[in-house]
Amino acid sequence: MVDYKLLHALATVVECGGFERAGDVMGLSQSAISQRIKALEIRLGQPVLVRHPALAPTPAGQRLLAHYQQVQLLERDLHDALPSLEKAAPRLRIALNADSVVTWWADAVADICQTEEVLLDLVIEDQEVGLKRLRDGDVAACLCATPNPIAGARCLHVGDMSYQPLASPSYAARFFPEGPSAEAFQKAPAIVFGPHDQLQHQFLAQCGYQGHFPYHLCPSSEGFVRLATAGIGYGMIPQRQAAEQLQAGQLVSIAPGQGLTVPLYWHYWRHSGQLIQRLTERLSHLTL
Amino acid sequence: MVDYKLLHALATVVECGGFERAGDVMGLSQSAISQRIKALEIRLGQPVLVRHPALAPTPAGQRLLAHYQQVQLLERDLHDALPSLEKAAPRLRIALNADSVVTWWADAVADICQTEEVLLDLVIEDQEVGLKRLRDGDVAACLCATPNPIAGARCLHVGDMSYQPLASPSYAARFFPEGPSAEAFQKAPAIVFGPHDQLQHQFLAQCGYQGHFPYHLCPSSEGFVRLATAGIGYGMIPQRQAAEQLQAGQLVSIAPGQGLTVPLYWHYWRHSGQLIQRLTERLSHLTL
Repeated sequence: MVDYKLLHALATVVECGGFERAGDVMGLSQSAISQRIKALEIRLGQPVLVRHPALAPTPAGQRLLAHYQQVQLLERDLHDALPSLEKAAPRLRIALNADSVVTWWADAVADICQTEEVLLDLVIEDQEVGLKRLRDGDVAACLCATPNPIAGARCLHVGDMSYQPLASPSYAARFFPEGPSAEAFQKAPAIVFGPHDQLQHQFLAQCGYQGHFPYHLCPSSEGFVRLATAGIGYGMIPQRQAAEQLQAGQLVSIAPGQGLTVPLYWHYWRHSGQLIQRLTERLSHLTL
Repeated sequence: MVDYKLLHALATVVECGGFERAGDVMGLSQSAISQRIKALEIRLGQPVLVRHPALAPTPAGQRLLAHYQQVQLLERDLHDALPSLEKAAPRLRIALNADSVVTWWADAVADICQTEEVLLDLVIEDQEVGLKRLRDGDVAACLCATPNPIAGARCLHVGDMSYQPLASPSYAARFFPEGPSAEAFQKAPAIVFGPHDQLQHQFLAQCGYQGHFPYHLCPSSEGFVRLATAGIGYGMIPQRQAAEQLQAGQLVSIAPGQGLTVPLYWHYWRHSGQLIQRLTERLSHLTL
């Protein structure tokens, strides 16, 4: 049988980002934590953590964490069946796109968080990277744009998010006085969420433009809207997130009719317990 | 003389998060990019990139990138002096806290971005980690809570952000019917930004509570506010960011009079060129 005390130490070190903090959380000394990690590595015959460039689990460590998370979810079902067992609130690690977190996610899961007393551990990832995290066992479920389930997992279409290329009116007048054109795209600074964000490229390709374009990088959804509203750049923003600014005329489309629709799929392991099942049931009734 | 063609390849690979995308951006094949990285590693006698767990620069790679960024900033000044030289828009990599990005940052820098034609590369880091990035040469400047400048750098107090412990009225009534108490803190799920976020701990210590508390993890400033508004947890939210929800009665303080004030300092290298100087000048006139 696996020694879960050791896995608990590993999970806490990864969650806290360090041995000292993990010790604080678990009420143990840093050296006690370090001994548990070492014991795990000796049993496994390989490292479970890398220290550089940042503290992170190795692929073997990730596999252990995935197992630990699945066991926790199964234990939760056990506690439902045998309520006299003492029960700790489970932590549900989910990867999802930043735009969902700042729009519909909280309202959709609020009921479940309260009734099930579940604690969320949200990992913000651009659409395609979350699925890799699920495959690596780093998260229990993920919301992303990919429609194909991975082996052993299921996937549910929860809705679509529609994006518009938005900018402040003065920015639009300055850089797109005659609407979208190759010349304008070459000069107008865009805003891109991060290196994995392909929305801007998709939008330009849809407009028939394939060349270089200048861009700011801003890995914050709401920061993105603030940069656009302040006239610093234009970018692909969820219509839902910008509703207020569109209404107030603070943001306008630089290419009306050239929006993008991104489907969102909920990916989850087939045997991940009743909590994920209930969350999935909730998401299946969503109207985005 | 350093071969800047190789540094450019390194910077592009790191920025794009991969060799293939870097090739697309630079108009080169993936193998051409790979050869440049290899050439750089041969000259240096050590690796500049690690592939696992994610593509990232080694400490030596970071040092090269810092140098490349400083040279770019100096070149910008050169181009100002010799305008006939062809000029590319500089990219300014800055680490700052998520709460600044979603509140005052965009309005404060909009003018400079437009007049200087600078492109931003924002790195979102919790207060204390940004300074480490500046020290590592990963960013040209950083906004954080630490008042002490590092060697070779200067620092400017730009203002203070005030945080309140906020929750929805129904959450407050359910978990804090008699205000803050050790018993309530033990049970009420908090919301924490990430493992480096110490605000929640500071708040609890200020209330005289040192024990364990349940918490959700949400590394998105705006997502944080959404979770609180939906009644999923309570958390330390900038007063400025929640102004609307406070006004509308959607969020209330669970411990009035127990807010926290976090000072913000702008850290920058002493010899980082006129653009950083002008940005610093702008930030020195800020009223947060």
